[in-house]
Amino acid sequence: MIKSGNILLISLLTYGTLVGQHPRLTLSPAGVENIKSNIGSTPLFEKQLKKIAQEIDVVISTDIDVPIPKDMAGGYTHEQHKLNYKLMHKAGNLYQFTGKEKYARFVKDMLFAYADLYPTLPLHPTNKSYSTGKIFWQCLNDANWLVFSSQAYDCIYEYLSPKEKDILEKQLFVPFANFLSIENPRFFNRIHNHSTWANAAVGLIALVMDNDTLLQKALYGLDRDKKQTAGFLAQLDYSFSPSGYFSEGPYYQRYAIFPFLVFSHALHNNKPDLNIFEYRDEILLKATKTLLQLTDPKGNFFPFNDAQKGMNYKSYEVVNAVDLMYFIKKDDVLLDWAAKQNQVALNEAGFYVAQNLETRKANAILKSSVLYGDGVNGDAGGIAVLRVDNTDVVFKYSSHGMGHGHFDRLSYSMYDTEGEVIQDYGAVRWVNVDQKGGGRYLPENKTFGKQTIGHNTVVINQESQFNATVKKAEHSHPELYHADFSDPNVQFVAAKETHAYGSTDLSRYLILINDKEFSEPLLADIFTIASDQPVTIDLPLWFQGHIMQSSFDCSKQSKMLAPLGDTDGYQHIWKEANCTLNADSFQFNWLNNQRFYTMHSVNSSGDEIIMGRAGANDPKYNLRSDPVLIHRKKNMKQAVYFNVIETHGKYDTTTEIPIRPYSQLQNISIDYFDQDMLVCSFLTDKNYWKLHLSLKDNDKNTKHSVIINNKTYYWEGVYNLEKLNYQ
Amino acid sequence: MIKSGNILLISLLTYGTLVGQHPRLTLSPAGVENIKSNIGSTPLFEKQLKKIAQEIDVVISTDIDVPIPKDMAGGYTHEQHKLNYKLMHKAGNLYQFTGKEKYARFVKDMLFAYADLYPTLPLHPTNKSYSTGKIFWQCLNDANWLVFSSQAYDCIYEYLSPKEKDILEKQLFVPFANFLSIENPRFFNRIHNHSTWANAAVGLIALVMDNDTLLQKALYGLDRDKKQTAGFLAQLDYSFSPSGYFSEGPYYQRYAIFPFLVFSHALHNNKPDLNIFEYRDEILLKATKTLLQLTDPKGNFFPFNDAQKGMNYKSYEVVNAVDLMYFIKKDDVLLDWAAKQNQVALNEAGFYVAQNLETRKANAILKSSVLYGDGVNGDAGGIAVLRVDNTDVVFKYSSHGMGHGHFDRLSYSMYDTEGEVIQDYGAVRWVNVDQKGGGRYLPENKTFGKQTIGHNTVVINQESQFNATVKKAEHSHPELYHADFSDPNVQFVAAKETHAYGSTDLSRYLILINDKEFSEPLLADIFTIASDQPVTIDLPLWFQGHIMQSSFDCSKQSKMLAPLGDTDGYQHIWKEANCTLNADSFQFNWLNNQRFYTMHSVNSSGDEIIMGRAGANDPKYNLRSDPVLIHRKKNMKQAVYFNVIETHGKYDTTTEIPIRPYSQLQNISIDYFDQDMLVCSFLTDKNYWKLHLSLKDNDKNTKHSVIINNKTYYWEGVYNLEKLNYQ
Repeated sequence: MIKSGNILLISLLTYGTLVGQHPRLTLSPAGVENIKSNIGSTPLFEKQLKKIAQEIDVVISTDIDVPIPKDMAGGYTHEQHKLNYKLMHKAGNLYQFTGKEKYARFVKDMLFAYADLYPTLPLHPTNKSYSTGKIFWQCLNDANWLVFSSQAYDCIYEYLSPKEKDILEKQLFVPFANFLSIENPRFFNRIHNHSTWANAAVGLIALVMDNDTLLQKALYGLDRDKKQTAGFLAQLDYSFSPSGYFSEGPYYQRYAIFPFLVFSHALHNNKPDLNIFEYRDEILLKATKTLLQLTDPKGNFFPFNDAQKGMNYKSYEVVNAVDLMYFIKKDDVLLDWAAKQNQVALNEAGFYVAQNLETRKANAILKSSVLYGDGVNGDAGGIAVLRVDNTDVVFKYSSHGMGHGHFDRLSYSMYDTEGEVIQDYGAVRWVNVDQKGGGRYLPENKTFGKQTIGHNTVVINQESQFNATVKKAEHSHPELYHADFSDPNVQFVAAKETHAYGSTDLSRYLILINDKEFSEPLLADIFTIASDQPVTIDLPLWFQGHIMQSSFDCSKQSKMLAPLGDTDGYQHIWKEANCTLNADSFQFNWLNNQRFYTMHSVNSSGDEIIMGRAGANDPKYNLRSDPVLIHRKKNMKQAVYFNVIETHGKYDTTTEIPIRPYSQLQNISIDYFDQDMLVCSFLTDKNYWKLHLSLKDNDKNTKHSVIINNKTYYWEGVYNLEKLNYQ
Repeated sequence: MIKSGNILLISLLTYGTLVGQHPRLTLSPAGVENIKSNIGSTPLFEKQLKKIAQEIDVVISTDIDVPIPKDMAGGYTHEQHKLNYKLMHKAGNLYQFTGKEKYARFVKDMLFAYADLYPTLPLHPTNKSYSTGKIFWQCLNDANWLVFSSQAYDCIYEYLSPKEKDILEKQLFVPFANFLSIENPRFFNRIHNHSTWANAAVGLIALVMDNDTLLQKALYGLDRDKKQTAGFLAQLDYSFSPSGYFSEGPYYQRYAIFPFLVFSHALHNNKPDLNIFEYRDEILLKATKTLLQLTDPKGNFFPFNDAQKGMNYKSYEVVNAVDLMYFIKKDDVLLDWAAKQNQVALNEAGFYVAQNLETRKANAILKSSVLYGDGVNGDAGGIAVLRVDNTDVVFKYSSHGMGHGHFDRLSYSMYDTEGEVIQDYGAVRWVNVDQKGGGRYLPENKTFGKQTIGHNTVVINQESQFNATVKKAEHSHPELYHADFSDPNVQFVAAKETHAYGSTDLSRYLILINDKEFSEPLLADIFTIASDQPVTIDLPLWFQGHIMQSSFDCSKQSKMLAPLGDTDGYQHIWKEANCTLNADSFQFNWLNNQRFYTMHSVNSSGDEIIMGRAGANDPKYNLRSDPVLIHRKKNMKQAVYFNVIETHGKYDTTTEIPIRPYSQLQNISIDYFDQDMLVCSFLTDKNYWKLHLSLKDNDKNTKHSVIINNKTYYWEGVYNLEKLNYQ
C-alpha cells in the first residue's frame, strides 16, 4: 500500500507544474523522494547506481580537466569534453539520489571551469562543419553538451547560491543557448536531427532557468510566426511518418529519439498543458515502438542508409526511450523490451521500470512483420519487414532519407539468428575512431557506400539511381504495390519505382514462405524491369559467408584482379570472375556462421555472373573485403529475375557433421511472363509450388486467368501461391 | 552412505575381471545397476539421456537404412553409415540404462543388415585412399564403425541367442576385424592415429567375443615379436611425448585420444593386470591434460598443423576423455573442466562425473603457461604457450608432425578473449562438407596452408622451410633455447632452428609482459637471422581485423592486383601494396572484434612493407580472404626483427566510444646487436624498458656485460628486462 501510494503521489506531482522547484527536468523532488525511500527493492536500478557511484568516486579524486578546444571527434579535447558532460550528468543524479555534497561540488566546480572558459572561446579552430561549434568541431556536439549539462545544473540548482547561479547563467548558459539558436540559425532552425538536439538543448536550459524567451525559441523556432517550419513541435510534426518512422532510418532515429524524449519528459513535468506525449496522436510512443521493430534477430538496427553496424536496442538512447515511454504509457510490451535490455535509465522512469520488472515476467512476442509508410503523411514509400520464425527480410522502398540516404530503392537485406545473411553494407565509417578520418564519413561512403551497386537492388547500365544525386532523389519515392501479412506462412510485399532510371520502371515482389517441408523460411524474390530501350541490368547479391559450390563454372581469376568499372561504385569492386550462363537456372550455395544457404535463380541464356569483392580504389583500406555475386542481363527491354533463397542445415565445427548441406529445392522456373502477369514455380522432390502474380493490377478482388500449355489457370487478387504434389 | 557404498562396490567390480559378463567394454553390469538405481540424482546425465532417447525413439519408427557403399565423405552412403554406428551405439546404451527391448531389437536388426551386406562387399569403389575400406572410402572410417558397433554389440550381447551371435561374428565381426588387421597391414601396423583406431577397433571386438587371437594383434601388432613397432601398446609408447604431447597437434590429438581411451577403458575392465592407466607413467592422463591446455581463451584448440578451426574442448571426444580420466584418476582439475563442458558422457564415467558435479563447485584456474617437449623422449623441440591474463601466445618449435605438419618452425599465434589476434590459418578444408572436395583436404592446403609464408615465421628467399618436403623436415627439429615462467609478469621462451634453411640459422625470443602501465599484456618478439650469404627475409604478420592506421605510407593498389609470387604459397597472396621504410621504426594499428592492437617494429632503412591478402590462384574459392602484413629485409647476412604488440582499449559499437584507440607505447629501438647479445628498449611517456638478451649462451648463471655509449651494462642469465623511469 505504501509503495503504490507513493507511485500515485508522483504521478499527481509529475503531472502538475513544478515551477519554483528543482530538479524539474527529468527528475522531480517527489520522484527523487520516492527513489530514496524505496531503495533496496530494485536490484537492477541499484546495481547501476552503484556502478556509477564507483566511477564518479574515482573521477572526483582527480583534477577537473576542461581543455581548450582543439581536436576533431576521437581526439583528446573532443573526447574529454564529451566525457565531462556525461560525468556532470551522472554526478548531478548521484547528488539527488544520495544527497552527498561531494557530487554537487564536482558539478559546480566543473560548470565554473566552463563558465571561465566559455567567454574566451572563438569558433572551434577546425572549421570543418556547416555549423562549427565552440567546444566541439560542430554545433551538434555543443548541443549534446548542453542537453546533459542542463540536467546536471538542474540537479544542483538548489545547492548553488543565487550569485553562483547568476554567474553560471550569464557567463555560460545564456550565451551558450544564444550561440546554438540565434547565432546559428542554419543549425537551429530547420527540420533535422541536428536541430532537434539544438531545440532540446535550448529548451532544457530554458526550463531550468525559467527563461521563457529561450523556451519559445526552442518550441517554435526563431520566428514563432513561422512555427510550422522550425522548433521542437515542428520537429515532431515533420521528422516522423504518422506511424513513427524516421526518414533517415533506424540508426539515426536511435540518435534523434534521445533529445525528443528528454525534452518531452521535461515538458511533461513543466508544461503539462502541451500534452506532449499525446502530441500528433502519440507520435513519440509510435516512434519508440517503430525503432524497436527495426532490429534484426540479434537486436541490431537494420543498417540501411548511413549507419554503423552493431548499434542495437541496448544502446543508452533506447534504454532511456523504453523506460520513459513505459513510465508514461504503461504499455506492457515496453516492459518486455526493458526486460530484454536488462538495464534501466538512472532516473524516475528507470526506477519505475525496475520496480515493475521485479513483479512481472517478460514473455511476449515482441516483433512481427511490419509496414511503415515514410514521409509526413505516411504516403512517401516506406519500409517493410517480413518476419517468419527468426528470419527477417527488410525491404526498402522509402523516400531518400535526406543527406544520409543511400541510392538503394527496392533493395532488401536478410537476417537470421546467426546474423547477416544478405547484408546491407552500411556506412563506410568508424564513428568516433580518430584513426579513420577523425571518425567522420570516409570518402568511400560517398563513392561506394551510397551507390546503388553496393546494395541488393538492380543497377541499370552500371549507373546509380538518380545518378547518385540527392536532390533528384528527393523529388520522388517508390510506391507500395501490395502488402499482405494476413497468412502467417506467406508474408508478401511489393513495390514499384518509376523515377530512379528515367523511363526504366522497376518492380520488386518479396515473399517469405514458411512451409514444413523446409527447416527454415524460403524467400522468393521477383524483380521485373521494363524499359523503352535495351539496357544492361545488374542484380547484386551481397551474401555473407564463404562460397561452397555453384552450378555455373566461374573460376576465380588466378593472375590478376582489376576493378569492375570506373564509376558509380563499380570502381570499388574487384572483379574476381565472370562467366556466361547457358542453362535455364543456376544455384549458388554458401556457408555462413555454421549455416548453409542456397540461392536458386532463373536466367536467360547469355546472362552473366560476375563474382566480386569490395576493396578496389581504396588506398587507405577503408572498405571491408566483402563478397558479392552479380547477375547481369544484357540488352533487355523487358526482364525478370526470379530468385529463391533457401536457408538449410547447419554445420557445427565441434561435431563436424554437416546437416542438410544441400538445398531441398530441386529447380525453379518461370512458366509465363508478360507485362501483366507472371507465373513461376519451384519444386522439391516431393512437391511443387506455383506462384501467380498480377504485375499491374493490385486490386485484391480482380479475377485473373492465364493460359499455359493450353491449360487455363485462375486466381484472384495480386498473388496466389499454391502447393501441389506430383500425384 | 548408500550412495558412497555403491560407488565403492563399482570400484571393486570394475577393477575385477568381468569374463563371462556383458556389457564389459565401457559399461559393466554393476555400473549399469548403479546408474539405474541412482537415476534422478544427476540432472546433467539425465537431460542427455532423455535427449538421446527422444532421438532414437524417432529413428526406431523409421526403416533401417544400410545402403551399398558408394560415396565419399559428405556423400549420402558415407554419412548414412556414420549415422548408423552412432545410432547403434546410442541405442545399445539406452537398452542397458532402460532395459527396453525395442532398443536392443533396433541394434540387432541393424547388425544383421550389416551381416547380410558385409560378405558381399568388394573394396569401396572410390579407391582414393592408401587403405581403401569396404563400408567407407578409407579403412579409418571402417575402424570408426567397429569401435562404436562393438560397443553396441556388447550392450545387446546377452539379449542375443548363441546362434545369432554366431552369425554376427562369423559373417560380420571376425571378417571385419581381419580386414582391418591382417588384410591391411599398412593401415594396422604402424605408429599413426589411423592405426590407433584400427588397434582399438579390433581390440574392442576381440574383448566382446573373447577372441584372444585378435586381442593379441590389437595389443602387440601383427607380429608380436616386433611389438615395439606396432599395436596399441606401441602407440602408447610412441604417439606421445613423455608429457603427453601428440606430434600432429591438438586437433588430431583430440581425434586420436578417443580410441586410446575407449579401448583403455575396456582393457581396464577386462585386463586389469595391464594397468593401462598407469602405463608409461600415466601417459593417458597426461595426454588428456595436455590436450585441455592447448585451447585458446574461447576453448578452441590452437589450430596449428592441419586443423579445422572451431574444434574445442566441448567436443564429444574431449567430454569422454575428461569424464573417463576423472572416473579413473579422481583429479579435481578434470572435474572443473567437466563443469565447464556442462555435459557428460553417457556411460559410467559420465554418470560418476555428473554425480560429483552435483556437490562440487568448479572454480580452479584451469590453464597456465606450459611447455611441452615433442618426440618420444620429449627432446625433439616442442610447443610453448605463454599465458598472462586472458592472452595466450603459442610458440611452435616442435618437430614436423608427420603428414599433417606445416612448415612453420618458430611461428607463433596469439589469442585473447575476443578470439584470434594473430592467426594460424589452419587447414584449407571443410571437414565432411561434400561441396568442398568431398570434405577432404583441398589442393590449396598443400600449396598454401602448409607453406611457410602462410604462418607467422620468417621465410628466407621466398622459399618454404625444407622446400616444403616432409621427409627433409622429419630429420630434425628446432631446439628450445630457454624458457622461464617463474615470474608471472614476464613469461619467456626462445628456440633456435638451424636446419630449415641450410646455412641460415633462425632464433626467436618471445616475451609476454604484464605491466600495470598497460591494460593488457605486451608481447615482445625478437627474431634473429644469421646466414653465410646475403638473403631476403620476409616476416609475415597474419593479423585478424581491419587496418586502422600505419606510420608508413603504403597505399593499396587501386587499379590492379597481382599475386605476390609464383611458388611456395606466395602465388596465393594478392599483393595489395608495398612500400619502402625510411624511419627507424614503424607502427601498425588495427581493430578486431571491438579491440585495438598496435604493432611497433624496428626496421632498417630500405626494409619493405608488403600488404597482402590470401585468395590468389584460388579458382574454386577455397581460401579465406584474410589479410597479412609482411616485413621484408633484403640482402641481409645478419638481421634482427624486434616487434612489440600492444593490445589496448576497446570500441563498443553500442556506445561508439573508443577507449585508448592509440597505443601507450611511444617508440621502440634496438640499442645494441652483435652475434652474442642484443639490447633493445621500448618506452611510454612515463617509463622505458630495457631488454638485455644473450643470444648464444643460455646458461642461467653466466654474467654478461655490454658497453653502449661508453656505459657498461651488466646482467646475469639469458635475459633481463628492466623498467626505468625518466627521472
